[in-house]
Amino acid sequence: MNDMTVSASAMSATPKKSLMLFAGRSHPELAEEVAKHLDVPITPQAAYDFANGEIFVRFEESVRGCDAFVIQSHAAPINQWVMEQLIMVDALKRASAKRITVIMPFYPYARQDKKHRGREPISARLIADLFKTAGADRIMTVDLHTAQISGFFDGPVDHLLAMSLLANHVRGKYSDAKLTVVSPDAGRTKLAEKWANTLDGCPIAFIHKTRDPLKPNEVVANRVVGEVKGRTCVVIDDMVDTGGTIAKAVEQLLDEGAADVIIAATHGVLSGPATERLANCGAKEVIFTNTLPIPDERRFPQMTVLSIAPLLAKAIHQVFDDGSVTSLFDGEA
Amino acid sequence: MNDMTVSASAMSATPKKSLMLFAGRSHPELAEEVAKHLDVPITPQAAYDFANGEIFVRFEESVRGCDAFVIQSHAAPINQWVMEQLIMVDALKRASAKRITVIMPFYPYARQDKKHRGREPISARLIADLFKTAGADRIMTVDLHTAQISGFFDGPVDHLLAMSLLANHVRGKYSDAKLTVVSPDAGRTKLAEKWANTLDGCPIAFIHKTRDPLKPNEVVANRVVGEVKGRTCVVIDDMVDTGGTIAKAVEQLLDEGAADVIIAATHGVLSGPATERLANCGAKEVIFTNTLPIPDERRFPQMTVLSIAPLLAKAIHQVFDDGSVTSLFDGEA
Amino acid sequence: MNDMTVSASAMSATPKKSLMLFAGRSHPELAEEVAKHLDVPITPQAAYDFANGEIFVRFEESVRGCDAFVIQSHAAPINQWVMEQLIMVDALKRASAKRITVIMPFYPYARQDKKHRGREPISARLIADLFKTAGADRIMTVDLHTAQISGFFDGPVDHLLAMSLLANHVRGKYSDAKLTVVSPDAGRTKLAEKWANTLDGCPIAFIHKTRDPLKPNEVVANRVVGEVKGRTCVVIDDMVDTGGTIAKAVEQLLDEGAADVIIAATHGVLSGPATERLANCGAKEVIFTNTLPIPDERRFPQMTVLSIAPLLAKAIHQVFDDGSVTSLFDGEA
Amino acid sequence: MNDMTVSASAMSATPKKSLMLFAGRSHPELAEEVAKHLDVPITPQAAYDFANGEIFVRFEESVRGCDAFVIQSHAAPINQWVMEQLIMVDALKRASAKRITVIMPFYPYARQDKKHRGREPISARLIADLFKTAGADRIMTVDLHTAQISGFFDGPVDHLLAMSLLANHVRGKYSDAKLTVVSPDAGRTKLAEKWANTLDGCPIAFIHKTRDPLKPNEVVANRVVGEVKGRTCVVIDDMVDTGGTIAKAVEQLLDEGAADVIIAATHGVLSGPATERLANCGAKEVIFTNTLPIPDERRFPQMTVLSIAPLLAKAIHQVFDDGSVTSLFDGEA
Amino acid sequence: MNDMTVSASAMSATPKKSLMLFAGRSHPELAEEVAKHLDVPITPQAAYDFANGEIFVRFEESVRGCDAFVIQSHAAPINQWVMEQLIMVDALKRASAKRITVIMPFYPYARQDKKHRGREPISARLIADLFKTAGADRIMTVDLHTAQISGFFDGPVDHLLAMSLLANHVRGKYSDAKLTVVSPDAGRTKLAEKWANTLDGCPIAFIHKTRDPLKPNEVVANRVVGEVKGRTCVVIDDMVDTGGTIAKAVEQLLDEGAADVIIAATHGVLSGPATERLANCGAKEVIFTNTLPIPDERRFPQMTVLSIAPLLAKAIHQVFDDGSVTSLFDGEA
Amino acid sequence: MNDMTVSASAMSATPKKSLMLFAGRSHPELAEEVAKHLDVPITPQAAYDFANGEIFVRFEESVRGCDAFVIQSHAAPINQWVMEQLIMVDALKRASAKRITVIMPFYPYARQDKKHRGREPISARLIADLFKTAGADRIMTVDLHTAQISGFFDGPVDHLLAMSLLANHVRGKYSDAKLTVVSPDAGRTKLAEKWANTLDGCPIAFIHKTRDPLKPNEVVANRVVGEVKGRTCVVIDDMVDTGGTIAKAVEQLLDEGAADVIIAATHGVLSGPATERLANCGAKEVIFTNTLPIPDERRFPQMTVLSIAPLLAKAIHQVFDDGSVTSLFDGEA
Repeated sequence: MNDMTVSASAMSATPKKSLMLFAGRSHPELAEEVAKHLDVPITPQAAYDFANGEIFVRFEESVRGCDAFVIQSHAAPINQWVMEQLIMVDALKRASAKRITVIMPFYPYARQDKKHRGREPISARLIADLFKTAGADRIMTVDLHTAQISGFFDGPVDHLLAMSLLANHVRGKYSDAKLTVVSPDAGRTKLAEKWANTLDGCPIAFIHKTRDPLKPNEVVANRVVGEVKGRTCVVIDDMVDTGGTIAKAVEQLLDEGAADVIIAATHGVLSGPATERLANCGAKEVIFTNTLPIPDERRFPQMTVLSIAPLLAKAIHQVFDDGSVTSLFDGEA
Repeated sequence: MNDMTVSASAMSATPKKSLMLFAGRSHPELAEEVAKHLDVPITPQAAYDFANGEIFVRFEESVRGCDAFVIQSHAAPINQWVMEQLIMVDALKRASAKRITVIMPFYPYARQDKKHRGREPISARLIADLFKTAGADRIMTVDLHTAQISGFFDGPVDHLLAMSLLANHVRGKYSDAKLTVVSPDAGRTKLAEKWANTLDGCPIAFIHKTRDPLKPNEVVANRVVGEVKGRTCVVIDDMVDTGGTIAKAVEQLLDEGAADVIIAATHGVLSGPATERLANCGAKEVIFTNTLPIPDERRFPQMTVLSIAPLLAKAIHQVFDDGSVTSLFDGEA
Repeated sequence: MNDMTVSASAMSATPKKSLMLFAGRSHPELAEEVAKHLDVPITPQAAYDFANGEIFVRFEESVRGCDAFVIQSHAAPINQWVMEQLIMVDALKRASAKRITVIMPFYPYARQDKKHRGREPISARLIADLFKTAGADRIMTVDLHTAQISGFFDGPVDHLLAMSLLANHVRGKYSDAKLTVVSPDAGRTKLAEKWANTLDGCPIAFIHKTRDPLKPNEVVANRVVGEVKGRTCVVIDDMVDTGGTIAKAVEQLLDEGAADVIIAATHGVLSGPATERLANCGAKEVIFTNTLPIPDERRFPQMTVLSIAPLLAKAIHQVFDDGSVTSLFDGEA
Repeated sequence: MNDMTVSASAMSATPKKSLMLFAGRSHPELAEEVAKHLDVPITPQAAYDFANGEIFVRFEESVRGCDAFVIQSHAAPINQWVMEQLIMVDALKRASAKRITVIMPFYPYARQDKKHRGREPISARLIADLFKTAGADRIMTVDLHTAQISGFFDGPVDHLLAMSLLANHVRGKYSDAKLTVVSPDAGRTKLAEKWANTLDGCPIAFIHKTRDPLKPNEVVANRVVGEVKGRTCVVIDDMVDTGGTIAKAVEQLLDEGAADVIIAATHGVLSGPATERLANCGAKEVIFTNTLPIPDERRFPQMTVLSIAPLLAKAIHQVFDDGSVTSLFDGEA
Repeated sequence: MNDMTVSASAMSATPKKSLMLFAGRSHPELAEEVAKHLDVPITPQAAYDFANGEIFVRFEESVRGCDAFVIQSHAAPINQWVMEQLIMVDALKRASAKRITVIMPFYPYARQDKKHRGREPISARLIADLFKTAGADRIMTVDLHTAQISGFFDGPVDHLLAMSLLANHVRGKYSDAKLTVVSPDAGRTKLAEKWANTLDGCPIAFIHKTRDPLKPNEVVANRVVGEVKGRTCVVIDDMVDTGGTIAKAVEQLLDEGAADVIIAATHGVLSGPATERLANCGAKEVIFTNTLPIPDERRFPQMTVLSIAPLLAKAIHQVFDDGSVTSLFDGEA
Repeated sequence: MNDMTVSASAMSATPKKSLMLFAGRSHPELAEEVAKHLDVPITPQAAYDFANGEIFVRFEESVRGCDAFVIQSHAAPINQWVMEQLIMVDALKRASAKRITVIMPFYPYARQDKKHRGREPISARLIADLFKTAGADRIMTVDLHTAQISGFFDGPVDHLLAMSLLANHVRGKYSDAKLTVVSPDAGRTKLAEKWANTLDGCPIAFIHKTRDPLKPNEVVANRVVGEVKGRTCVVIDDMVDTGGTIAKAVEQLLDEGAADVIIAATHGVLSGPATERLANCGAKEVIFTNTLPIPDERRFPQMTVLSIAPLLAKAIHQVFDDGSVTSLFDGEA
């Protein structure tokens, strides 16, 4: 209870603020790890599905006045986890939480961030609006598919970057190798440049789909642009879903004489044939973070999973403490 | 194209309005049937799931300026179908549909229409807000769990009633029987009274959980209140989910001497053991509408499924034509 | 004034929070009583009506940054008191109150919580929206006509329950009697069950409107369902307006041999002939809370009015102190 | 019903639009007169007060798709009539009216259009927001207390002017008199100038509260500024409430030698002693419009009440027909 | 960093609040002066224009959780400064400022506070809505053109008054003179009355545009109403733009025998020929505040510019400290 | 006037719809050209700046019920033109326009579509929100800097593409040349691919900033990737502002043996040294559209300006007529 005094005209007190952590059911390991880093328990709750799939949630402690952080990893079945997080936010709002921060380590529907053709939805904007409507005050997320998505939410978005985490691992483990950062297509070249800067200015390359100038209507197979022969190639991306593009990139790099190939991506969506493709493509190491759960049956010997939990915990602490999230990334976020 | 004339200061035309029908993937049979009754095709669309469960939708015809009706039956996996309908509404809004009516024959999360205890969500309100945010102008639904839910939406709600449909079937088929309408618990007594009025003022009864006045802390088994001996009992409800309560009610009615028992409910959710329970409880006939899909494996010989499609089509036509939906129900809705 | 320090880049201070209590003019006794329990004075204000009925309000102290609780009892003339409370909220918002909690011990227009027939308003939702628009952040209310109404407000609603207050009075005074809880119609049976649980599991009964099965179109007079002979019946309801239904229920219970009849309801609206009916119906005691003012001319010897003020004061204190309101009701609210 | 055709992909029709008129219970004569001028009946409705003052409304015809005009005169008890109109708007919105125009011939709470001192409400803004929230698309009103109020509503406001109506009456009846337009205080001088322009450029005067320069702290009685001796003075204002100021103005003008004094004001609020004051102040004629009801007991021989109904009907017709309201006032509104 | 403790279920801390001051580029001197009075530095930022005029802003320190005050003087080019302040507010919102107060010493577009004729904007309302949309929680401004404008903003407006500042200067400097307060037209008479009360009840006068009663269509030149002969006239207004009206007023007052004429106005807009007109009109002193920048080339020997900075600083401090702004003006604001 | 009939219960009419075109003052030539293509005049208006830069607008014809299209080209001074268009939208909303489409051929602040570093605004989102707030129902724009921006607006965005216009010009004029499409940096490679598809599958190239793998910290000058020797290179981009990057690209292409170089970009911002750089860089032709005004002093002999007016007119007509804008671009927009 707060320390209170009663004056002539009002009752006064010094407010307290309290951080409470809430977790959806999609990825309990990550939530537990964040909780441990924060030294704050996950608030106990009842959460279950009715027979027809409707989700029920009830918090087992008072949340009145708390600074609520609600973490959910948007893996498959993704619509269920989106709805569960929306329902948790609704329950927090109605139970008088003071501020609600929605933590989505992997932003759902991020690839539908524009109409690719006419009469399509812009589902990434819809997601932002749904959470706003449910009662979210803020969003925290990691490595958006495009940075413009943070403009879809009408409020503060803490956009965390996992590159340092991934790059430090690479630098530590391959300190003797001659590294080249490789983008699997032209669209990620800028990301590759940032990686290269972090990795002591190593060179970059990327895979380019070309056409033969003499046979304009014929598509020529992919071409590697940049020096890869004899080098340890680090193929980077924001996410790997079915793994087709990136597995082919690895094969091509090896074909063109790369000494070794490493894959590093933030989000391991790993749908369908992804595990098989990645395990067999020839990559020496495949590095993800655990923004999404990667169950044992989708793992393979060359896979390394780095924990995003320390970064999330640090950022949560900064948000709670009115510190600086930007400073965690040298001003970049 | 419209007939246009150009005046000195503006281009004038007589507007057209056009009804377009859109269907989610949850219950294509119902949507097709509605379309047939309206003599309007379902607008072709591409709709599929990405590998991680994200839904994609694109309409294959221009929807600009149309009066859009978007039908989705909220069966399991219910969160997927909610999200699909939200995404369809978003796409319609961005593609310049003039007005968007969301048709939810079974309103999702209707049972969570209040906090049963502290720190719970009010998910039925959340659903209304999510559709409003996505761009829904109006909602059309059938037999809400509680009528107050229509106050959750900030806009017009056409709340259709399936009782006449069900009651006419009963009256036609059991015209010679002595009917009694039975509510499976005290909370549906008012609905039973409405049924009784429709069925020529037949008597009502209901199942009441009682305690023995002499042993106040001991729960006595359910008691049937009203005349059921030798009568054909029509047990009514808004929905049947796992079927436990209603199957027990049938057994008790038969125990107390009912000649026959018929079950009539609008929404056949039919989760888990429902089919087995209903098939074996002793009911002579079990009547549902097709607001929700009832696949063959959940059907059994005594089940009758009446189509809600004609009623939906009539209501859609009234909405499009600025007619009266209330008049379809003698002023009751 | 706050304790302040100036750093290099900003002026810092430890915030204070202060509870201020505001009261409309409808029920000054209740407001004063709440103030006394909180040990906080009602903030002085000028409030009066212009000659044409327009209401004017001005607060006579600074309210900047306060946690404002605005109490109004919605008795007749109910529209005047609704408007006065809206105007007070507007004035608080514009005068920079930090948070505004609207306290409506009796929620106005709660009976119009749905369309009973077509083309009606849903006035209870309208009330929620009007207060949101004026600037209310939260609502506190007692015993809503239906719990779904708390879903009409887009924000937290503290829904307090008066049953313990009423039931404790009954238990204390009639500890030797054999009690039966009676619902005056089928719709309040669940409330009767909760009462029975509180009163040590005593039996329940209710009044049921029946039709004769052999004369289906003829309405038979009300029937008491449950054991009442020789017992002390406690007829319960959320509100008593003109008192017709409940007075008839008392008479019928006495006719059927009840030893005594007690009426217990939260809200004593007591319009028109209510006082006369209740005083003369044969009830031994008629118990209300003072959520609404009950002037002397509407009182009679058998009436007991319990004060809701201690409960309101406790809840206000919990809200101010970020405590738990749910805990005041063993998790039920 | 509309003329419909069904194409390959949609059902098409030519829309109709229909004007429907709705009236609150405050001033049925005005509503009937407007209806007659429009040749449109007032839509039948059930409207009554519950015993505790709660208002109930139901429309007895379908209003789906209509262009609704809802008229209410905000006389005392003003809060009741405000709430009734809000409830009517809510019912129209939920019953699918296409567009809702709120007609308030006298804008309620217009005098509270700013904080006169600290910690006051701005009730005129609140009124605008309440109607917006209930579902009003547009407002039509007559002679606002200050024109800035039309900026309080987030949507179109048709601000009608009654000056021509009043001035034409004066010109027609006093064509031989030497007129002077008089403002009862300094704040209405600009209105007096507009009147003078309409009355063929007649001179203006006004009543000025002065202080003696030699006794600065002493208030000197009012002073008439301008030529009034031997002239027929037309004292103008937007409203007359208790009539004190304007009755004194008349007496002073007569004291200073005015030949005759006429009062002309748009809104006859006429609270408390107004009738007696006006009847006995010496004015030859007192002219109002019927924006507010003036019951027989508040009338007196010198009073003339001009009907605002033709102007309202013309404006409603222009709004329905997408014509020009501005043109009704030579561009002034 | 805050002092933190971790309990069993949450991490608790005592919140800090910190005031941060932000300044647009329009009037750095005023912002610096406010900063000095507050003893708080202006938060460093990068702010510049792209080649095509687009404005860029980035704050160079963390603003998370701060109580932000953003000052901008809306001088020409006024649209640039409006947009810059909007962009600053957007950046603060997205960077998690806790509360954002927009300080506009001169409210832009205040003269367009109503439609003067049909089909005009109400730009002063638009300005309020634009800042609300960008993220402003509150507005602080000085001497609005009409007080109703504070009702345009949906939130608290601290409307500061500069009259005491100006009047104290006049009183101190002209303590021996016989003062008369003069309004340059009828519309500012009430302001003149307030001035007179502040200046020990001195008399007032104003300039009145009259018509000759015998030549009604002919405009007679302005007339001074009130005693000015031999007196020191203080001509007051809220702003001076091109200076035409007020310069003529001065000339006329001198013509009619005023001993001296002083001009006192809050906002020195001083467009086009204003400086020349004011310098040469014969006024002994022309007094403004520095709500707007007055560059050296627009100054002249008789001009006095009083600083509004101490008042702004006091008000900011009260807002930050939950004190009373109203008390700064004896209850008037 | 519409054709009207009066029924028993309502007045009915067949609605008309009328397209009205409004133009800001930034680029009258484009607006006139669009008007000519539509055969609709620009609605006459008064629009001017007050001395302090405040903008005033009044429409000189009734706009009630019209389908309004408001065109403004956002050239420098860009903030003035943004504010003017906002004010026009406000005036249209308040004057009862039925629907308001904001046409921004060049979307202002499009480059600030994300935070490039922490504590920046997302001005492109702010612009969308400001227009929504002012009253815009829809936006029409050409070649957004990133397609995600259309997700910033809460409503339909017609995103037109100018590529066909530019590409057809190139194809027509250089039908005999061997073309290569060149992106000036890696980020526009996808656009280059679309161009190549339009130009009969010609090859593509782009300018790539590389680092020497052997000297990782040293930036190597730009490198042309792809076949350009002896070919006619078409350097494409969405906009050219100061022209530095693109002029260098031209020089490099010529250095590497390109036969000719053509520049083609949609938006000719052309700030500062752009004209000189483009005129002297060696390009054979520089092609823009007139989405932005290009005054004579910024033109030079090699410049070709294609009119976007026919495309805008076609799209406006489709929007007005409920046709398909997507179909204008083969489904791409």
